[in-house]
Amino acid sequence: MSLKTFLIGQPIDSVKEKRERLNKITGLAVFSSDAISSVAYATEEMLIPLAMLGLMAVHFSIQISAAIIALIVIVALSYTQTIRAYPNGGGSYIVARENLGEKTGLVAAAALMIDYVLTVIVSISAGVAAITSAFPSLSLHTVLLCLLSLLIIIVVNLRGLRESGAIFSGPVYVFIGSLLLLVAVGAYKFHGGMVKPQNVFVAGALDAVPTFIILRAFASGCTALTGIEAVANGVKAFQAPESRNAAITVTWMAAILGVLFIGISYDAYVYGILPKDGETVVSQLASAVFGIGPIYYVIQFATFFILVLAANTAFADFPRLSSILAADSFFPRQLASLGDKLVFSNGIILLGVFSAVLLVVFEGDTHLMIPLYTIGVFIAFTLSQAGMVVHWFKKREKWWIFSMTMNGVGAIATFLVFLVVSYSKFVLGAWIALAAVPAIIFFMHKIHTHYKSISEQLAPRELSSASEYAHHSVIIPIGGVNKAVINSIRYAKAISNDVTAIYVCLDTSKATITKELWDKFGMKVPLLVLDSPYRSIIEPVVDYIEEVRKDYKNGVITVILPELVPSRWWEHLLHNQTALLLKGILLFKKGVVSTSVPYQFE
Amino acid sequence: MSLKTFLIGQPIDSVKEKRERLNKITGLAVFSSDAISSVAYATEEMLIPLAMLGLMAVHFSIQISAAIIALIVIVALSYTQTIRAYPNGGGSYIVARENLGEKTGLVAAAALMIDYVLTVIVSISAGVAAITSAFPSLSLHTVLLCLLSLLIIIVVNLRGLRESGAIFSGPVYVFIGSLLLLVAVGAYKFHGGMVKPQNVFVAGALDAVPTFIILRAFASGCTALTGIEAVANGVKAFQAPESRNAAITVTWMAAILGVLFIGISYDAYVYGILPKDGETVVSQLASAVFGIGPIYYVIQFATFFILVLAANTAFADFPRLSSILAADSFFPRQLASLGDKLVFSNGIILLGVFSAVLLVVFEGDTHLMIPLYTIGVFIAFTLSQAGMVVHWFKKREKWWIFSMTMNGVGAIATFLVFLVVSYSKFVLGAWIALAAVPAIIFFMHKIHTHYKSISEQLAPRELSSASEYAHHSVIIPIGGVNKAVINSIRYAKAISNDVTAIYVCLDTSKATITKELWDKFGMKVPLLVLDSPYRSIIEPVVDYIEEVRKDYKNGVITVILPELVPSRWWEHLLHNQTALLLKGILLFKKGVVSTSVPYQFE
Repeated sequence: MSLKTFLIGQPIDSVKEKRERLNKITGLAVFSSDAISSVAYATEEMLIPLAMLGLMAVHFSIQISAAIIALIVIVALSYTQTIRAYPNGGGSYIVARENLGEKTGLVAAAALMIDYVLTVIVSISAGVAAITSAFPSLSLHTVLLCLLSLLIIIVVNLRGLRESGAIFSGPVYVFIGSLLLLVAVGAYKFHGGMVKPQNVFVAGALDAVPTFIILRAFASGCTALTGIEAVANGVKAFQAPESRNAAITVTWMAAILGVLFIGISYDAYVYGILPKDGETVVSQLASAVFGIGPIYYVIQFATFFILVLAANTAFADFPRLSSILAADSFFPRQLASLGDKLVFSNGIILLGVFSAVLLVVFEGDTHLMIPLYTIGVFIAFTLSQAGMVVHWFKKREKWWIFSMTMNGVGAIATFLVFLVVSYSKFVLGAWIALAAVPAIIFFMHKIHTHYKSISEQLAPRELSSASEYAHHSVIIPIGGVNKAVINSIRYAKAISNDVTAIYVCLDTSKATITKELWDKFGMKVPLLVLDSPYRSIIEPVVDYIEEVRKDYKNGVITVILPELVPSRWWEHLLHNQTALLLKGILLFKKGVVSTSVPYQFE
Repeated sequence: MSLKTFLIGQPIDSVKEKRERLNKITGLAVFSSDAISSVAYATEEMLIPLAMLGLMAVHFSIQISAAIIALIVIVALSYTQTIRAYPNGGGSYIVARENLGEKTGLVAAAALMIDYVLTVIVSISAGVAAITSAFPSLSLHTVLLCLLSLLIIIVVNLRGLRESGAIFSGPVYVFIGSLLLLVAVGAYKFHGGMVKPQNVFVAGALDAVPTFIILRAFASGCTALTGIEAVANGVKAFQAPESRNAAITVTWMAAILGVLFIGISYDAYVYGILPKDGETVVSQLASAVFGIGPIYYVIQFATFFILVLAANTAFADFPRLSSILAADSFFPRQLASLGDKLVFSNGIILLGVFSAVLLVVFEGDTHLMIPLYTIGVFIAFTLSQAGMVVHWFKKREKWWIFSMTMNGVGAIATFLVFLVVSYSKFVLGAWIALAAVPAIIFFMHKIHTHYKSISEQLAPRELSSASEYAHHSVIIPIGGVNKAVINSIRYAKAISNDVTAIYVCLDTSKATITKELWDKFGMKVPLLVLDSPYRSIIEPVVDYIEEVRKDYKNGVITVILPELVPSRWWEHLLHNQTALLLKGILLFKKGVVSTSVPYQFE
C-alpha cells in the first residue's frame, strides 16, 4: 500500500471536500488555459499549407486570421447564451442529449472523447516543441519528453489535483503577459524599422492559390478555437452571480485569445517567418524580436507550462464525462461516481493509456495530430449550439429570439467549419476522427445493450426459483498440510457435515508425509488421494467435483481453497496462482461455489 | 475468449507435444541466429570509437578484429567441453550453481536476465537499422518499427512458436550465404582494382592512439561473441549422438562467425568505410560492392530477419530460466512450470514489457545499448567457464586435465574481457548493467526469503489450532432483488441457519420496492435496512460485520456476494466492482470469509 500512497496520496474524504469558488481573475486562469494556449500552434498550423505553395500564398494568412477572429467572436457570444441557460454547467453532451435526444447526445459524447484525448496529445507535443525549439539537442528525445510530461500529469491527477486558481494563475498570466509583450514589441520594432523581415510576402495572382489550400489553412487555424467551451462546463465553480461572472470571463477569454492570435499572425507575417522543422513559429518570432535571452526563455517555458495545464484540463473533463456516461449505462459502471477518488482514477488511467499510445504512434508530432483534433471539437461545437437553438425555441424565455439567433449563427458557422475541415483535411487524418465517432458510439451502444439485457434477465419472476437445495457437499483440494489448510478445514466443518479433502499425488513420498500429518491435524475429515497420470493438478480435482455433482443433482457444492494473505502488497503476486486458475474454471459450473478461506499472517 | 484464441491460438496439450530432433544443418540454423547475427553490428561498434579519433586510429581495426577472432576460438572450444559434460543442457546458471554454489549461480542468473533483455533490444534495433539504412525515410519511425517488430515476436511466442528448423533455416542460411558472397566479392573487386576506397587508413604513430580507445574498440567488437553459448543450452534438441552433433555444430558456428566477422572488418577497412548516422556499415559495404540493387536488398532484409530470430531466441530462453529460478523459489511461482502454455506466457509478457520500455528509453539506438549488453554476456561466460573448471577438477573423468585447461583458458580470457568492458565502457552505460546485477540479486533474495518465511510460519505445530468454530453467521449485502440475489439466498440457507440480508438505503422509494420484493422472494431470511448518511455503500456493511464479529467471538462469518458471470470475457469488465472492493477489505479481517456465489446466464 505504501508505494501507492507515496505516488498518489491519501484517499480523499468526499464529505470534507469543499470547492473553492473562483472570481473572474482566477476563473479565467482555470478555464482558459486550453483555449488561450492554442495560440502557441494555431498560427503555425495555418501557415504550413500556405508555405508549401510559396511566398505568394502566405500573403493570405492575414485574411484567414481575420476570418478566424470573426469565428471566435461568434462562438464566444454563442457560449454566453449557453451559460445563461445552463447555470449548472452545460457540457456539449448534456445540452445535445437534453435538446436533440439520446442518439445525438452520444455523437457529441464520442466527439468529446476524441477531443479530450487530442487535447492531451496536441498540447503536450506542442509544449515539448516549445522546449525543443529552445534546446534543439533535446529534439532527439521528443517522444520521451512527451511521455515524461504525460506521466507527471497522470500522477498529479491521480493524487487529486484541485483546479485551484493559485496553481493556474501563475503560468497562465505569465503566458498572456509575455505573449502580449511579444506581439506589441514585435509590431513596434517592425514599424520603427528596427528589424529586417526574413521574407517578404506579396500578393500574387489570386488564381495561383487554389481555394482548397486556403480552406486547409483556414481549417488548421481553427485550432485556435479549441477549448473555448470550457467556461460553459464550469459555471458552477464561479462566485455568485455565477452566470454573469462566467459570461464576462468568456468575453475576456475570447478577447485575449483573439488579440494574441491576430497579433502573432500579423507579426509572423511582417517578420516574414515561415514554419520550419525543429523550431516553432512562436520561438522564431520571439528570437527575432528579443534575441535569445531571458525574455525568450520566459516565453518558451511559459508556453510549455500553459500547454501542460491545457492537457491537464482534459484529465479533469474526461473522467467527469465518463462518469455521466456510466451513470447512463453507456460506459462501464466502474467509471460511474461512487463518491471516492478510486473512480476518477479509472478514467484518468484510461485517458493516460490512450494518450501514451497515440503519442508514440504520432511520435509527438503536433502537425500530424491537428487534422484529427479539429474534427472532434467542431462536431461538439455544432451539436451543442444546435441543441441550444432547440432549447430557446422550446422554453421561450425572455430574450429568447435574440439568444436563439446567436446560437443559430454559432451552429451554422461551426457546422460549416466542420464541413471545411472534413473536406480539406480528410486524407491528412480527419478521416480517422470521422471513423472513430461511429466506432465509439458502437462501443457505447454495445455496453448499453449489455446492461439492459442483463437487468432484464435478472428480473425475478417465478416464485419456484426460490427453493432450498437438497444437499450441501464441501470439497477441499489441498497441496499439503499447513496452518492455512487447517484453517480451511475448520471453516468447512462450520458450513457443512459432508466435507471431503482431496490431494493430488505427484510424488508418493510427499503423499505419505501428507497423509500422516492429515491423521493428526485433519479433524477427522476424510482425505482422498487422487493419482494424476499427466502431472496436472487441476484436472483430477475438476473430475472429482463433476462426480459429486452427478451424485447430488439437487445439491450445491462448495470448493474451499486456502488463501494466503501476506502483509505486503507485492507479496500477493507470489501466491495463490493455482487456486486462481481453479476458481476461473469453477466460475462457469452451475451449482458449484468456490470459496477462498483467507489465512492472515501475524 | 475468442480474441485471446485468435491472437495466441489454442492451448497446447502437453501430453501430445513432441519435440522435433535437429540434425547439424537445422541445429545450426536454430541455435546460431543469435551468435551469427551479431556480425551485423559488431564491426560497426568496433569502428565507432576508432573513427572518433580519426583515420589513423581506424588502422588498428584489423589487429583488434584478429584478437576478437582468437577470443571466439577460445570460447567456442571451451563450450565444446561444456557440451561434453552437460548432455542435458548446460546453461550458465545451472553450471555456475552446481559447481560454484547458489550465490554465484544467482550472479550468473542476474547476468543472463540482463543478457536476454539486451539480446532482444539490441537485435531488434540493429534489425530495424538494416531496414532504415535501405529506406532512409523510415528512420523517422525507428522506435515505432522497433515496437512493431517486438509486438510481432511477442504474439508469435504467445502462440507457442516451436524453434523448428523449417522456420529458422531459410533466413539464417540466406543471411550466411549473402554475407559470405558480400565478403568474397568485396575482396575480389578490391584486389581486382574495380573499386576505389572511400578513405585510406594509414598507420599513424602508435602513441597517437590512446590504449583506452583501443580497449574500448575491442570491448565493442566483443559483441560478436554474444549468443555463442546457445548450443550448449540445447544439446538435448539434437539427434543422437547429441553431444557430438552439438560440438560439431558449435565448431561450424564459430567458423562461420569468425569468417564473416573478419571478412566484414577487412572489407570495411579496405573500402575505407566509416560508421555514419542513418546507415549501417554493412549497408554501406553492400552498396559499395553491389550497388543499390536486388543483392543489396536481399542482404538488408536477411539481416533484419536473422536479427528478429536472434531476438526471438531470448523469448525462448528467458521463460525457461525464469521457470528454473521459480522452481528454486527465487522467482515468483507463477513463472514455474505448471506444464501448460499459460506459465511461459507470463515470462514472455514480462520480457516483452521490459524490452518495450527499454526500446523507448534508448529510442531504438543500438549504439547506446551495446555497453550494457557486453557486461551481462561476459559475466555469464566467465562464471560458466569457471564452473566447468571446478566440474572437471571434481569429476576427474577421461581427458579431464585437457578439458579443465580449455575451460580455464576460456574463463581467464572472458574474465579479462569483462574487466576491459567494465573499465572502458563504464561511463557509457556499463555501470547500469553492473548496478543491475546486485539489484536483481537483491530482488531474487527478497522473494526467496519471503517463500522461506511463509513456509516456516505455515508449518502445523499445535494440535489446539484444529478446533471447531462455535457459531456460523451468514450476511448477504444486497443492492436489490434479482435472480442472482435469490440464487445467493438459496446458497446461504444451504450453509447456515443464521442468515441475514442487509440493504444500504440511499433512496427511500427504491428501498420500499426492494422490501416488497424481499417479502415475496426472500425465502424468509430477515432483511436489515441500513441508512448511509455519507452515501457510502461499503461502510455500513463493514460496520455491521464488525458488530456480528463482536457478538460471536469464537464464531466465523461468511459474507455472501452475488456475482454475475456473463458469457463473453469483456463483459466481465462491466460488473462486480463494488463486490470486488468489499472483498478486498474483508480479506484482512480474521474470522470473516467472503464468498462470491456465481450466477451464470443462459
